[in-house]
Amino acid sequence: MPEASQRSPIDFYFDFSSSYTYIGLPRIEALALRHGRALNWKPMSLGAIFKERGHAPPGKDTAKGRYQHLDLIRCAAEQKLPFQTPAVFPFNSIPAARGFLWLQSLPAGRPVDYAHRVFDHAFASGGDVANVETLCRIAKECGADPAAFAEAIQSPAIKAQLVELTAEASRRGVFGAPTLICDGEMFWGADRIDQLDRWLSR
Amino acid sequence: MPEASQRSPIDFYFDFSSSYTYIGLPRIEALALRHGRALNWKPMSLGAIFKERGHAPPGKDTAKGRYQHLDLIRCAAEQKLPFQTPAVFPFNSIPAARGFLWLQSLPAGRPVDYAHRVFDHAFASGGDVANVETLCRIAKECGADPAAFAEAIQSPAIKAQLVELTAEASRRGVFGAPTLICDGEMFWGADRIDQLDRWLSR
Repeated sequence: MPEASQRSPIDFYFDFSSSYTYIGLPRIEALALRHGRALNWKPMSLGAIFKERGHAPPGKDTAKGRYQHLDLIRCAAEQKLPFQTPAVFPFNSIPAARGFLWLQSLPAGRPVDYAHRVFDHAFASGGDVANVETLCRIAKECGADPAAFAEAIQSPAIKAQLVELTAEASRRGVFGAPTLICDGEMFWGADRIDQLDRWLSR
Repeated sequence: MPEASQRSPIDFYFDFSSSYTYIGLPRIEALALRHGRALNWKPMSLGAIFKERGHAPPGKDTAKGRYQHLDLIRCAAEQKLPFQTPAVFPFNSIPAARGFLWLQSLPAGRPVDYAHRVFDHAFASGGDVANVETLCRIAKECGADPAAFAEAIQSPAIKAQLVELTAEASRRGVFGAPTLICDGEMFWGADRIDQLDRWLSR
């Protein structure tokens, strides 16, 4: 087995509005650690991908939407995670994703800490992470300057980076979140994390 | 814990054209046995339910369709099941479902044996189970009269029974297969069988 540093990373495509990414996140991080793989966090706009592919999340008042709500509650309970549907849902996750990219670009940025706080605020507390003030507060909790954060998420370079990551995801066949790509093999969904774990253990 | 005979059965809604029902079937049967629950086999027309709800299976040439093909191969391999996509897919599963209902109505019918053979012919051998001659042959292997089988799947009573089961599934919120309903709780998908298992073990 090659040294951890020689093993290729796991590309992790996510969207802050993905409930199942929140549910799967602890297992995704544990899996990367266990197999000595870096986790390559790649935010994308799932809304743009859905639009391109003609997909849509199930409506709240459909049989699938009602079932999915129960399923999320059961899956969160099994993972011992608190769960609340965000007050506004689905929500605009683009400012949160841009903020993540900006923190990733800073030498002392703490993007992963920020990502945890954003996911928890949305899905553990049912908060509104489409709200830029909320995101600035979270960025501040992660040691970043909130005014610089607010400016950065409007910058053309950061905007272009999210567009490019979304296009990259689309080119690679991503159609949902979370999506993990490891050594050329793609795994979609919180219910395939354990399968990737077994696949890496072969 | 009540005696097995007192425990309510697990309602098992399925469609012979559902690849993931084929993948999940051994675990579904093992789970019912382990928990002393009867398995209440309920064929339905998933095509009719998809039509009613505006759902559709992913197209072969879409990112999701290509991924699903890989996923089925991986899931089958993990369950040590042979897997082939049927030559015609998706296929018309209505004759197969009607045949199941007829065998279920016979005192000496072997509907479960028939169901295994139909699923295996479709997904282990890649055969065409929309073909009535093929179904008659399978019915004969299960000890039924093939001519009576061919007549029965055209009978108004059997047709009406499948329509009614499909309407019942729809009323209960079923939107995909396999769907298991146990003590009022619904579980959808081959990837929720283990969750139902844990839920029943509580």
